[in-house]
Amino acid sequence: MTAQATKPTHPLLDQHAGVLDEIRQALTSRSWYSRYPESPSPRVYGETAAAEGLAAYEAHLNRPYAAELASAVDGTFVGSEVSPYGPTLGVAYPVLDLDAGLAAAEAAIPAWRAAGPQVRAAVCVEIADQINRRSFELANAVMHTSGQPFVMSFQAGGPHAQERAIEAVAAGLIEQERVPESVVWEKPGKDREGKPAPIRMQKDYRIIPRGVSLVIGCNTFPTWNAYPGIFASLVTGNPVVIKPHPRAVLPLAITVDAARTVLAEAGFDPALVQLAAEADGQGLAKTLAERDEIAIIDYTGGPAFGAWLEERGAALGKLVYTEKAGLNTVVVDSTDNLKGVLGNLAFSLTLYSGQMCTAPQNIYVPSTGVETDEGHLSFEEFGERLAGAVSRLTGDDAKAVELLGATVNDQVRSNADSLESMAAEAEGRVVLDSRRVVHPSFAEAVVRAPGLVSLDVQREDVYTQECFGPVGFLIETASTDQSLAQLADTVRQHGGMTASVYSTDEDVLEQARQAAVAGGVALSENLTGQIFVNQTAAFSDFHGTGANPAANAAYTDAAYVANRFRVITSRRHV
Amino acid sequence: MTAQATKPTHPLLDQHAGVLDEIRQALTSRSWYSRYPESPSPRVYGETAAAEGLAAYEAHLNRPYAAELASAVDGTFVGSEVSPYGPTLGVAYPVLDLDAGLAAAEAAIPAWRAAGPQVRAAVCVEIADQINRRSFELANAVMHTSGQPFVMSFQAGGPHAQERAIEAVAAGLIEQERVPESVVWEKPGKDREGKPAPIRMQKDYRIIPRGVSLVIGCNTFPTWNAYPGIFASLVTGNPVVIKPHPRAVLPLAITVDAARTVLAEAGFDPALVQLAAEADGQGLAKTLAERDEIAIIDYTGGPAFGAWLEERGAALGKLVYTEKAGLNTVVVDSTDNLKGVLGNLAFSLTLYSGQMCTAPQNIYVPSTGVETDEGHLSFEEFGERLAGAVSRLTGDDAKAVELLGATVNDQVRSNADSLESMAAEAEGRVVLDSRRVVHPSFAEAVVRAPGLVSLDVQREDVYTQECFGPVGFLIETASTDQSLAQLADTVRQHGGMTASVYSTDEDVLEQARQAAVAGGVALSENLTGQIFVNQTAAFSDFHGTGANPAANAAYTDAAYVANRFRVITSRRHV
Repeated sequence: MTAQATKPTHPLLDQHAGVLDEIRQALTSRSWYSRYPESPSPRVYGETAAAEGLAAYEAHLNRPYAAELASAVDGTFVGSEVSPYGPTLGVAYPVLDLDAGLAAAEAAIPAWRAAGPQVRAAVCVEIADQINRRSFELANAVMHTSGQPFVMSFQAGGPHAQERAIEAVAAGLIEQERVPESVVWEKPGKDREGKPAPIRMQKDYRIIPRGVSLVIGCNTFPTWNAYPGIFASLVTGNPVVIKPHPRAVLPLAITVDAARTVLAEAGFDPALVQLAAEADGQGLAKTLAERDEIAIIDYTGGPAFGAWLEERGAALGKLVYTEKAGLNTVVVDSTDNLKGVLGNLAFSLTLYSGQMCTAPQNIYVPSTGVETDEGHLSFEEFGERLAGAVSRLTGDDAKAVELLGATVNDQVRSNADSLESMAAEAEGRVVLDSRRVVHPSFAEAVVRAPGLVSLDVQREDVYTQECFGPVGFLIETASTDQSLAQLADTVRQHGGMTASVYSTDEDVLEQARQAAVAGGVALSENLTGQIFVNQTAAFSDFHGTGANPAANAAYTDAAYVANRFRVITSRRHV
Repeated sequence: MTAQATKPTHPLLDQHAGVLDEIRQALTSRSWYSRYPESPSPRVYGETAAAEGLAAYEAHLNRPYAAELASAVDGTFVGSEVSPYGPTLGVAYPVLDLDAGLAAAEAAIPAWRAAGPQVRAAVCVEIADQINRRSFELANAVMHTSGQPFVMSFQAGGPHAQERAIEAVAAGLIEQERVPESVVWEKPGKDREGKPAPIRMQKDYRIIPRGVSLVIGCNTFPTWNAYPGIFASLVTGNPVVIKPHPRAVLPLAITVDAARTVLAEAGFDPALVQLAAEADGQGLAKTLAERDEIAIIDYTGGPAFGAWLEERGAALGKLVYTEKAGLNTVVVDSTDNLKGVLGNLAFSLTLYSGQMCTAPQNIYVPSTGVETDEGHLSFEEFGERLAGAVSRLTGDDAKAVELLGATVNDQVRSNADSLESMAAEAEGRVVLDSRRVVHPSFAEAVVRAPGLVSLDVQREDVYTQECFGPVGFLIETASTDQSLAQLADTVRQHGGMTASVYSTDEDVLEQARQAAVAGGVALSENLTGQIFVNQTAAFSDFHGTGANPAANAAYTDAAYVANRFRVITSRRHV
């Protein structure tokens, strides 16, 4: 009898076998796929869904979280979340008992490993499905921790994050299924009399997880940036401990709650998913990262701690996946659809006040200007037109807040306040100041529309630092050639999550592709409609490339999952 | 026009398309596959091959290497190789000009990238084929640098290494082919009138290499341990700089020579493969590892420098694959074929004087003894029987040297000389001393047969250190349960490349599989014939697991290749 003698089964595998086929196929073909509708419309999610979600969110406030979020807690609570929109959340989270909690996670491994990749994948899909049912509750939680506007909180915090989750499930499932469970290996040979006498061996290949996985969440996309690591680790057999950003705990608490409920109902140990909440400034991520039990670390956040994790993790033999920061770049050369360019760019700058790791920052425009379907525009004229588009999009406070959301922290507010001084320092000009927007419902929210500073290409000292939030740089170059060279050089050196180019010239577009290759960044070409450079689609777009300093991994390719498990062979003659 | 418009072609792709199909299929199914016959028989390689290979080897001696081994050299030469069999080789190697050589490597990237995965794979197969034609020359070079016996030098240094090369080619090819070159992504949507108006985008996915790859060779398996990294990097588009061990340069010089010849004839820049030879003690590996141009590092060697590379490489954003050292373990419980066990174990201990990263070191036997088809054997009796088997196998000097080879360095000789003191220190017993064998042809060679020291399981201080060379520990445990627990614990903590078990009890075998899983090491069960625990087969056996401290990677799985390239998307509306 070997471990491979009987294939594990599970009711959830019967239920989700078709979904597994769909997601395997979608990821393999990188074609469009959606399981979770992105529209918060009552026609899709039900007439009562929004109100019920809000009520569920409000029920969490000003009390200890009502469900178990870890398998061992120390009896104390933490929680200091304040909504960027103003209100204090007041949710108290139990503190993980590290020794006992990590021991519980490790103890959960054997049964989860024995379940096999398909059952694990089916359970993961069920977790994502159950999270989807809480999308309105999550939308409110994401909104009041990240400061995202509501619809974006719903979409990016809900269905889009859930689809990145099942994308990671698909990637991990496919990767494990590439390893045969057992083969008979037959080497031709002859006996002493010259008759065929092959050597035959049976080789069984067991997939084993690395160990406990630590996922470190961020403030701005608590679910979207955490789900890939959580689900990639889970489907490959690793328990997960989730350390949320101290100011964005609730979305991941709800996630952990949903996951543990599904795991328990499916007959697995809920210790496979645990929350490790901390007080602000406590440094729990560092403590956890150095624990022997932690084998994998997924991190989204600032570059300094990310770099420390990469180095320290390697020294301790851990796998570390990081997404840090970078310079997102736009190269404007020419267009036959100026209104489309301006509208698309203005939206990309405006959405969530530029507080996306994918939002444009550096917009290169040649000093010779831009040829358009509305005639030639000088560098200055293009800047004015873009400023006008941003102003129109964000001119009405009530409408603007539905795109801008609220500023998430003081650094963002400080950046928004610094346009004049940045322009002065860079010998540039404030083309559009960051307008203060009054939120009609949340008076305490600090809402800022994008501002634009124009400066010369020589001032790399200013624009090669990430200026997170509602600030764009209009950078005057000698030519589109120089713009493209800057794209390649600055991204290769400082990192970048996104790049885009506008040109009517096929040669320029091909040069832009080469510049994107040289910089190691994905390129969007001539976006003038309802697709924005900030957005990537699960199952099709790689989020990040892992080829520049902004991130050492991409959502989701084989490299993101292939090393989360190892293969142990046992071989014998047959 | 996009980069994907025309598929690259090449005469070598036409020539090797069938081979690529074969190796894709073999690696996917992990079944037996061989392209390069392992027998040095004249019937296979030709009547004159052995003599011609020896002559080619001898033509290298006492002169500068006759072909170009790098694209930029500084005019000086190094070379201090002395055969473990005695003779000084006297080959002088040109020293790489680091700045110019690395610049040449980088300059070779664009054309190599543009060639695409299939053409690169075909060129790599041709390189392996041409290396295969030099197998007898390589056998002599491997023999006189590693000290391996001749037939092993031929097999492990020649065909088996070449098959690990094309296995890596297959892995890299398959991995790149999983990324579609281009897709049309279509998201359903409706226009304002409710009519279907899908959003359609074309997305092109370009595969780009990481950058220049550094392969750091070892003394004992200069080709076998270097080829996976070399070919995995090459096929995924990365130029390779090969830094051989200062005492085992010639095998990799011949390899580089062959590779550069094929590349040039195929119309590619030979700077894609360059040798970086150094004088003993120069520290060139460290210098190269810290160069900005180096993006990937493959290393086989001692644990201290391997650990430094892992940490420093991570700090510098480089990928690092290491194979270091470990404790290879045998658990003896019971057998129905004692002669087979003893013969197989004796051979595993004897082959190349135990100077294999896969050779057994720690043999656990219960104090209650071993049930066999020849009756019950006490712990002491089993030790005596194994000592007898080793003595018989190595008793005749002339025959013994064909298995033992020569000791490669003073550390190995010192280990072989230390059995009495080790036994005294461990309060154990020398069961078999390491016999000095006189080589009939090479009087200066230091040849040592395996020795055995028995000691108690409590003396982990002695047996949990790697004792490289012809030393085996017979470790007395309370029970097979304890033996298996020690397997798991010591390998998990200190690493191990191989493990094996002998038992007639299916429950014990299943427990052994669980122990191997817990230790993260591959298991061989009841090897009593012509398969040895030291040996792994390309395309089927994973060499190492990457799941314990002995190595952070395995030959060859997806994790070994998936991160050697990245994917750059360009997307546009269509």
